[in-house]
Amino acid sequence: MSSKVFFDVGISLDGYMAGPNASPGNPMGDGGRAMHGWIFQTATFREILGIPGGGGEQGTPDDARVQHVFARTGAYVMGRRMFDEGEVGWPENPPFRGPVYVLTHSPREPWVRQGGTTFHFVTDGLANALAQAKAAAGGKDVRISGGIDTVRQAIRAGLLDECTIHVAPNLLGAGKRLLDGLAPGEMKLVPVRADGSALVTHLDYRFAQAS
Amino acid sequence: MSSKVFFDVGISLDGYMAGPNASPGNPMGDGGRAMHGWIFQTATFREILGIPGGGGEQGTPDDARVQHVFARTGAYVMGRRMFDEGEVGWPENPPFRGPVYVLTHSPREPWVRQGGTTFHFVTDGLANALAQAKAAAGGKDVRISGGIDTVRQAIRAGLLDECTIHVAPNLLGAGKRLLDGLAPGEMKLVPVRADGSALVTHLDYRFAQAS
Repeated sequence: MSSKVFFDVGISLDGYMAGPNASPGNPMGDGGRAMHGWIFQTATFREILGIPGGGGEQGTPDDARVQHVFARTGAYVMGRRMFDEGEVGWPENPPFRGPVYVLTHSPREPWVRQGGTTFHFVTDGLANALAQAKAAAGGKDVRISGGIDTVRQAIRAGLLDECTIHVAPNLLGAGKRLLDGLAPGEMKLVPVRADGSALVTHLDYRFAQAS
Repeated sequence: MSSKVFFDVGISLDGYMAGPNASPGNPMGDGGRAMHGWIFQTATFREILGIPGGGGEQGTPDDARVQHVFARTGAYVMGRRMFDEGEVGWPENPPFRGPVYVLTHSPREPWVRQGGTTFHFVTDGLANALAQAKAAAGGKDVRISGGIDTVRQAIRAGLLDECTIHVAPNLLGAGKRLLDGLAPGEMKLVPVRADGSALVTHLDYRFAQAS
């Protein structure tokens, strides 16, 4: 089994990955945080965040999704802006616990963090970052973490095998839509599975052009 | 049990209910028909359309959805434009088989069709059309058939109890989005159920402000 390349993102029911007025201090935009509320209720995410006392829900479809995505992922690829925004906010033990390949134009030494997370800086493009991530993933899958422009770039380049979209019932009304600007022929998906809770619906797809 | 008011519509993965260049001769817009392809594969819809020899899939989640929505519906409400566009194309036995309340400004005698479908023309607004439809539904539910402006009007007026959104994996890239122009506070949904097939994903919600 070779590594699959996937993205796993949350959107609002009206399709936004971030609300209006997004900025480094407000990375998800107005209302954006609410649509991710479900993840903070899962036991797995609370454990990953190191919340004292843990808590949270176990054995729910939501918790199973969080557990699955962390278990399947052997390496990450992310855009520079997502890294820059995260760098100031991530704890010393960021929630990756594996190698993260950051797309950038500025060479930089690897940045080793606690808990298994090391950021590697790749200056020769997405396809090369993915090749390095696959080689480092130990047979596990490679997650394109974001942001939205990096996900779109991967879609357009036909580099994806699968994706999961978490649809929150919220409306954001404005902001940045995940799929805006993609033409009908640029993405062919086949639904694989759908489940969820009263907070969110999880949709799994495979890319039809991928093997 | 009193009648529930609901809508049941199909959208593309990028949120469009109709593609670009929609017109009376192209009511779903470019690419719009493809996202409804799943329904024509179900045995129930083929039977309703009166396709000779029937055929189609039985016992699938898709067929169960079609069966359920027709079984639950006792009356319909639709906007004038949807009626005008349908009037020229519906067969003598249209796929409603119950009373349909059409929102219009021009009084007109009821139009009786074969198979139980009668179109009634309501000139005093959506809330009154819904009241008439509920009274005629015999304890079954009332479906707001469309079009998109009538669905939005019902959302804004807080007249809905439930909705089902069929998300096709297609991208349309442009057209009319179901939820465009709705502000975050205008619709509060709670996910109830999600299932589907390799062609489409069915999402059921209830409106949080409704009883």
